[in-house]
Amino acid sequence: MENKKLKSWQGWTLFIASMAVVFFLGLVTSSLMERRAEVVSVFNNKRVEITGIEARNEVFGENYPRQYRSWRNTERTDFRSEFNSSEADDILAERPNMVVLWAGHPFSKDYLAPRGHMHAVEDVRVSLRTGAPMSEDEGPQNASCYSCKTPDILRFTEDGAEEFYTHKWAAYGDEMINPIGCADCHEPENMNLQITRHALIEAFERQGKDIKKATLQEMRSLVCAQCHVEYYFRGDGKYITLPWDKGITMEDMENYYDEIGFSDFIHALSRAPIIKAQHPDYEIAELGIHGQRGVSCADCHMPYKSEGGVKFSDHHVRSPLAMIDRTCQVCHRQSEETLRNNVYERQRKASETRNRLETELTKAHIEAKYAWDKGATQAQMQEVLQLLRQSQWRWDFGVASHGGSFHAPQEVQRILACGLDRALQARLAISKVLAKNGFTGEVPMPDISTKEKAQAYIGLNMDKERADKARFLETIVPQWLEKAKNVE
Amino acid sequence: MENKKLKSWQGWTLFIASMAVVFFLGLVTSSLMERRAEVVSVFNNKRVEITGIEARNEVFGENYPRQYRSWRNTERTDFRSEFNSSEADDILAERPNMVVLWAGHPFSKDYLAPRGHMHAVEDVRVSLRTGAPMSEDEGPQNASCYSCKTPDILRFTEDGAEEFYTHKWAAYGDEMINPIGCADCHEPENMNLQITRHALIEAFERQGKDIKKATLQEMRSLVCAQCHVEYYFRGDGKYITLPWDKGITMEDMENYYDEIGFSDFIHALSRAPIIKAQHPDYEIAELGIHGQRGVSCADCHMPYKSEGGVKFSDHHVRSPLAMIDRTCQVCHRQSEETLRNNVYERQRKASETRNRLETELTKAHIEAKYAWDKGATQAQMQEVLQLLRQSQWRWDFGVASHGGSFHAPQEVQRILACGLDRALQARLAISKVLAKNGFTGEVPMPDISTKEKAQAYIGLNMDKERADKARFLETIVPQWLEKAKNVE
Repeated sequence: MENKKLKSWQGWTLFIASMAVVFFLGLVTSSLMERRAEVVSVFNNKRVEITGIEARNEVFGENYPRQYRSWRNTERTDFRSEFNSSEADDILAERPNMVVLWAGHPFSKDYLAPRGHMHAVEDVRVSLRTGAPMSEDEGPQNASCYSCKTPDILRFTEDGAEEFYTHKWAAYGDEMINPIGCADCHEPENMNLQITRHALIEAFERQGKDIKKATLQEMRSLVCAQCHVEYYFRGDGKYITLPWDKGITMEDMENYYDEIGFSDFIHALSRAPIIKAQHPDYEIAELGIHGQRGVSCADCHMPYKSEGGVKFSDHHVRSPLAMIDRTCQVCHRQSEETLRNNVYERQRKASETRNRLETELTKAHIEAKYAWDKGATQAQMQEVLQLLRQSQWRWDFGVASHGGSFHAPQEVQRILACGLDRALQARLAISKVLAKNGFTGEVPMPDISTKEKAQAYIGLNMDKERADKARFLETIVPQWLEKAKNVE
Repeated sequence: MENKKLKSWQGWTLFIASMAVVFFLGLVTSSLMERRAEVVSVFNNKRVEITGIEARNEVFGENYPRQYRSWRNTERTDFRSEFNSSEADDILAERPNMVVLWAGHPFSKDYLAPRGHMHAVEDVRVSLRTGAPMSEDEGPQNASCYSCKTPDILRFTEDGAEEFYTHKWAAYGDEMINPIGCADCHEPENMNLQITRHALIEAFERQGKDIKKATLQEMRSLVCAQCHVEYYFRGDGKYITLPWDKGITMEDMENYYDEIGFSDFIHALSRAPIIKAQHPDYEIAELGIHGQRGVSCADCHMPYKSEGGVKFSDHHVRSPLAMIDRTCQVCHRQSEETLRNNVYERQRKASETRNRLETELTKAHIEAKYAWDKGATQAQMQEVLQLLRQSQWRWDFGVASHGGSFHAPQEVQRILACGLDRALQARLAISKVLAKNGFTGEVPMPDISTKEKAQAYIGLNMDKERADKARFLETIVPQWLEKAKNVE
């Protein structure tokens, strides 16, 4: 009796299991067929043949209207308010300490919250960081700046970017027109993903790796890593280089920079040789749990979307929090509110250490200046300068990366804690230097409670900066646009 | 044609969906029946009737042999070497700074890595922290200590624990025999989970919550929270109390302690009023992602196990890393190696800040003593003492919790970073106090490179401590055991 029951139970299990297998096979086949149909239909509907270098995004738009129209949405800048971010548009106004931290570097003049890809070229012209060049050979920035702004550079860097980078950015004002777009990441003939930027290819080569062997899933991050990485301008030719030779952690890159004795600028107050972190987005993402599990940038920032049965990657690159149903919820079963709060919680915990670090590091730069003023010697200040360099690199690395405190919360918290550690050690060391020079009181702190006050304190003439920029925008840029239009 | 296709497709979808629903209903029913069968079989096989307070675990063992035998495995202490933990058995020998951090508190004498539940009573007798009481009314510890060591206390605390706690621990040496076990968490009549410790019930009450309304899943954590929490001994009666009235975060509890002006001890070097964190395991776990997603302590530390078709909770409570196949892998599809490394990575990142914090806080206590020696006044030291209290609370809270850096990595890193911040701020403040008292040099650091050197530095006579303990173990404890045996 017992035995019979068992057999009948086994039979049913087998039957049900077979049904389940058949069902899932059906699902898989159906999905494969749908996908193939989509690809075929896209390529059958090509209206223009594109070959060679084509920087104009609207030309691609003829063939791939869905991707193009979603890409055009990167013009929208309302995504931040969509999910209640507290980050203001003018970051220096929100955090005047950052003006002091960047004293001696153009970032102290102007640092706005990042906008979508569509604004890339416009923003590089408008930013006070790029100055107001009235002629082709006026700086301050080199043409290297364009590398992450427009596919127009591809026409000039096909056989190497060395020569291009040596020019000032104003030299190409009439050529650099189309914002970051299709040709930056796609082969025009078949729309396969491709790496067009030399710096990334060369960084792989120096590590003994061939980027051409990357899988499709890796490419869905690597195309982003063409720009969203830490880099520096090597030598007088301002050759864009990724400091990855020893690895991609914060310490690996610091070792690299230390070894070649590189610094981006000498701090105007403390005289510390500072490395300005760019945006090590890819590196930090790779160190977090999503990166470790093989989730690509595109999985969350360009999720699949369906329109009329056609599935395509949404090219409106933005925060996944603006579309949780198509991003987080593909894997996680929690509610939108829960998932959003999970992200905010990570950001809050990192921000706590960040805020303390900014406060202490700002004081340290100001106190270091005070020590110089009191007659401190280079030998006395050696340890201080080193600590300030280390602290600021950690601060900037942890803060400059977009979304870092979500991509790799533990890593970013570790980096910021380490930065705070060095900032306070620097202050301790400065107090000893001051004591040696006969001062044991409190170092007077300037009023840097607003961006304007902080900029005045570090000696910037912002009225002149703005007036120069206005003249440049009114006279030079219209000439560039006119010339570009005539060529087209 | 198109329409027909659509209808046929809809029909199939409906059919397949129905099949899937039926299949899952079957699964659920089967699972329910299996579970009921198991419970019935367990209760039908009861050999002895247990009612009232029964502290002897082996009596339960008669009825529930699987649970009992797995519980007995908590005697094994080899689980640490099983997964390559670097934590030594003698934590003070591994980290002599901790001797200095606890100067003035019994923890500076002896702190071994925790062992399994089976060792609870034995370890409370052997530890140098409990002294060597040669009579019933000798301390140093009160009977409150037993609260988390044995179900034998239940006989004395049924109608309230107030009176029991006021006695010295030696007064009950012959009564406290059975290590943490069955009756601590189970109703003997039906083995339902129950809360037996007053402190937890009262903490809920003061927050306006009724612990009796907890769900089964919540109970699978709350029974652990009877001991694995932050608590303090309130007043002269040493009444065990959880400081949860304002909430369960580190700051909530600090506010609670500050408001009632509580400290566990005055630091023997710096004279700071220190709160000794116990082991806020439950609180930290609740703040991490697993706790937030409703995973209970038992889910990972007492996973289900099958023996001969009977499914039961493994009572060999230990690190989930020792049984990844039954813990992490129930939800996560990665390999054991990957999952283990994910845990180690979190621990490493927290350890980095912890190590720095211990180094700096140790220096700060030593420097504070130096400031007192140089004639610093109470008024001058006020800020320093406050910073030291805050720093040490953060350090101890982040470190004392078992598994905290995995349970809630971001929270623990935040707490440790905040602790390091305060330690360095304390050192800065001390350097200012020293300067006011005419000293601007480097404070000389003692040699505390080993546990023995550190203990000698803070003035402990360890030879005497060990000799007293040996005499106690040779004379008093055998009397206790003899008396207990005769009663039984």
